[in-house]
Amino acid sequence: MDSDLCYASARELAGWLRAGQLSAVEVVRAHLDRIQRLDPKVNAIATLVAEQALDAAAAADKRFASGAEPGPLHGIPMAHKDTHDTAGIRTTYGSPLLAENVPERDELVIERLKAAGVITLGKTNVPEFAAGSHTVNPVFGATRNPYDPGKSAGGSSGGAAAALACGMVPLAEGSDMGGSLRNPASFCNVVGFRPSPGRVPTWPRPLAWSTLAVQGPMARTVADAALLLSVLAGPDPRSPIAIAEPGSVFTGALDRDLRGLRVAWSPDLGGTVPVDRGVREVLEPSVRVFSDLGAVVSVDCPDLSGAEEVFRTLRAWQFASTFGPLLAHRDQLKPSLVWNIEEGLKLTGSDIAEAEVLHTNLFHRVREFFERYDILLLPVSQVPPFDVELEFPREVAGEPMHSYLDWMRSAYFVSATGCPALSVPGGFTTAWMPVGLQIVGPHRADRMVLEVGHTFEQATGFGTVRPPLVTS
Amino acid sequence: MDSDLCYASARELAGWLRAGQLSAVEVVRAHLDRIQRLDPKVNAIATLVAEQALDAAAAADKRFASGAEPGPLHGIPMAHKDTHDTAGIRTTYGSPLLAENVPERDELVIERLKAAGVITLGKTNVPEFAAGSHTVNPVFGATRNPYDPGKSAGGSSGGAAAALACGMVPLAEGSDMGGSLRNPASFCNVVGFRPSPGRVPTWPRPLAWSTLAVQGPMARTVADAALLLSVLAGPDPRSPIAIAEPGSVFTGALDRDLRGLRVAWSPDLGGTVPVDRGVREVLEPSVRVFSDLGAVVSVDCPDLSGAEEVFRTLRAWQFASTFGPLLAHRDQLKPSLVWNIEEGLKLTGSDIAEAEVLHTNLFHRVREFFERYDILLLPVSQVPPFDVELEFPREVAGEPMHSYLDWMRSAYFVSATGCPALSVPGGFTTAWMPVGLQIVGPHRADRMVLEVGHTFEQATGFGTVRPPLVTS
Repeated sequence: MDSDLCYASARELAGWLRAGQLSAVEVVRAHLDRIQRLDPKVNAIATLVAEQALDAAAAADKRFASGAEPGPLHGIPMAHKDTHDTAGIRTTYGSPLLAENVPERDELVIERLKAAGVITLGKTNVPEFAAGSHTVNPVFGATRNPYDPGKSAGGSSGGAAAALACGMVPLAEGSDMGGSLRNPASFCNVVGFRPSPGRVPTWPRPLAWSTLAVQGPMARTVADAALLLSVLAGPDPRSPIAIAEPGSVFTGALDRDLRGLRVAWSPDLGGTVPVDRGVREVLEPSVRVFSDLGAVVSVDCPDLSGAEEVFRTLRAWQFASTFGPLLAHRDQLKPSLVWNIEEGLKLTGSDIAEAEVLHTNLFHRVREFFERYDILLLPVSQVPPFDVELEFPREVAGEPMHSYLDWMRSAYFVSATGCPALSVPGGFTTAWMPVGLQIVGPHRADRMVLEVGHTFEQATGFGTVRPPLVTS
Repeated sequence: MDSDLCYASARELAGWLRAGQLSAVEVVRAHLDRIQRLDPKVNAIATLVAEQALDAAAAADKRFASGAEPGPLHGIPMAHKDTHDTAGIRTTYGSPLLAENVPERDELVIERLKAAGVITLGKTNVPEFAAGSHTVNPVFGATRNPYDPGKSAGGSSGGAAAALACGMVPLAEGSDMGGSLRNPASFCNVVGFRPSPGRVPTWPRPLAWSTLAVQGPMARTVADAALLLSVLAGPDPRSPIAIAEPGSVFTGALDRDLRGLRVAWSPDLGGTVPVDRGVREVLEPSVRVFSDLGAVVSVDCPDLSGAEEVFRTLRAWQFASTFGPLLAHRDQLKPSLVWNIEEGLKLTGSDIAEAEVLHTNLFHRVREFFERYDILLLPVSQVPPFDVELEFPREVAGEPMHSYLDWMRSAYFVSATGCPALSVPGGFTTAWMPVGLQIVGPHRADRMVLEVGHTFEQATGFGTVRPPLVTS
């Protein structure tokens, strides 16, 4: 029963729960058991609130029995990213400075999940302040890859991805500035979706108009990610950039006829980044599936000039603004974070303006590219999962990587474009490590990206064909 | 016939034109005649393209006669702000540096007007690069107030406001960073509406995500402004901040029952700005009309702390980015513009971040204020129209004004909030100079603001009760 329930899709679970065929307590207990059994092997869960979860599940069952209309995620267990504030539940941001931090209120994304009926099991592990795409921090240590515990689970939503792969939760929310929903999905063979900025309104945030960091859904299937997005999306007056469309646009079947779809595929972002041979060898044949489904696939890539400067400058600027005061405790910050903050503190107003002008130019070039193509396919990550003991891979395809950001370009160049981007399982290396395919669509075309991803997933089955090592 | 046609509302004109009861040539000729007769007194029209306009009108009539479906503004003459690029028509930005500039393409706002059937008569006068709220520049000189040619018409959409008041055009589009749609409307007894950022998508613009400057409609009545907005609003893929709602939400009757409407009124923005006694004495009794209509009026104002820093910092930063290269020709720039650019060049990245954090805090305080009130009423301008020979008023209510921005706070504090704001005729001083009432609503509640303004306008009739001096 445990593994049946814990590998059921969230859509199925939600259906059974809402039909009263399963109780929230049963579902929560199954997932708690699984966490107890498997989490010691991967360290995905930073904080567990098992008793609180069982109490909440019992209360949910009682409300349901009394005839109250259940929410769309009634009784679904989730663990929340440890950089997302949860009222009354320790939220450390992976930092010793906040090791005992217990927020007084939920942030908006948590509010929405609770309102939809989600039962909180705890928090998922992150890198310190979610900086970087490998999940390790001094409070909880490293999260390990379910497909090989000697490898990284990616990050910054690494705990979320590993927990999903291990069946510890059916859904997880994350966030993504430079790939934090996509890289861990790629490394752990699950689905992560970076929505268009404003699709999932975020509050509180110090820079309300910023479009670089977004929140979004993770799941084991695209359909489940869409279900979660239907709850996370939709306007809220607390976000001035919120897209007005309701979350309900993400409900319903995602099947799409790909015949005639104009697909651009670039294995190396137009030659701008090194890509590990293993990643290419996995994705090249997978992309052929699009042709088999009737799409017209061309090797092409938008001109991504300026993406590097846009992302690096705006990231450093935001890090300096948000984390600058933490430099007073620099001995308790990881050096790469200190470096990133200090890079930001050097910036002039003109530097920011130049980055914003490049940002605008990049937006328009990519917009024009999408007049010729419906969809852009890229690798999510330039490398397969790397050694869990490293902070970041020291080289990619023979090119040395000098900082914790250098190897993340295939993800963060896309962040700079503002386009929605899905990481969907794209196959396995010869060592049976997962490789994600990145599906990028035009500005705000979130639903189309999900439909294309779902159709590819249905045709290939990479997400289910090989369960993680740690669960076998 | 001339003055009948030229003071008809745009809604009426559009109806007659679309019904074939009037030809575009008749309408255009009447307005050209009026410009010829009256513009020498006010200097509202920077560039006139009379022959081109008559040709376009004849072509429009021909298309109409052939049975082509006329656009919503078929045959309506307009003159465009001289900072809005018009293909093939000189666009000087009021600068000697661009005195002979003829753009190759229309910008988006002009594209939309043409597609709706508008006939372009020419360009409306502006301050140099639209900087400041008094319309004067070395290329065309000053625009004069139709109610007293010795006074300013306001700015930066000053030519547009004066042209509307004189019946030279039935509609005009403008732009507003710090009050440029509102101050001239206030000074000339017409209507100017600063929409929510993204309501009227703007392209091209160097900083695509900026929310400080917006484009919007001007007219002699709120209903006509709404008609124009219905053509200007709606998404365009070239603007990443475009609001998705179609322009059609601004069609239809605007009447609104104000009973129970929760209205806050502040004659001096909570005591933060000096306001001329004449302005207060005009608006105090006008605001009572809201009570007469059943609204619940309280004297109250949101805490606008930070609005000064937000507006001044972001404006200077954008000026430095956009106009910085012009410092190479500083002898051909007005000193106030040079000063503003140089202020911007001094800014650090941290200054911009601090301004954005204040911007975020201000947004949330105003959002919470609008949980308690539906509408906020303020003066548009802190002073009645001032001497046309001045660059800006040297004092307001006894307080000295040191720069061309100092006297514009009642308008630019509202820009910093991001809220939609209407300037509607609010009455006259004892010297029969117009005073505008500023109606501010919650973020994106553009239609409600227009409805409230329309209902106030219908109840008071200040826009029509006293025609401008120069036309009598």
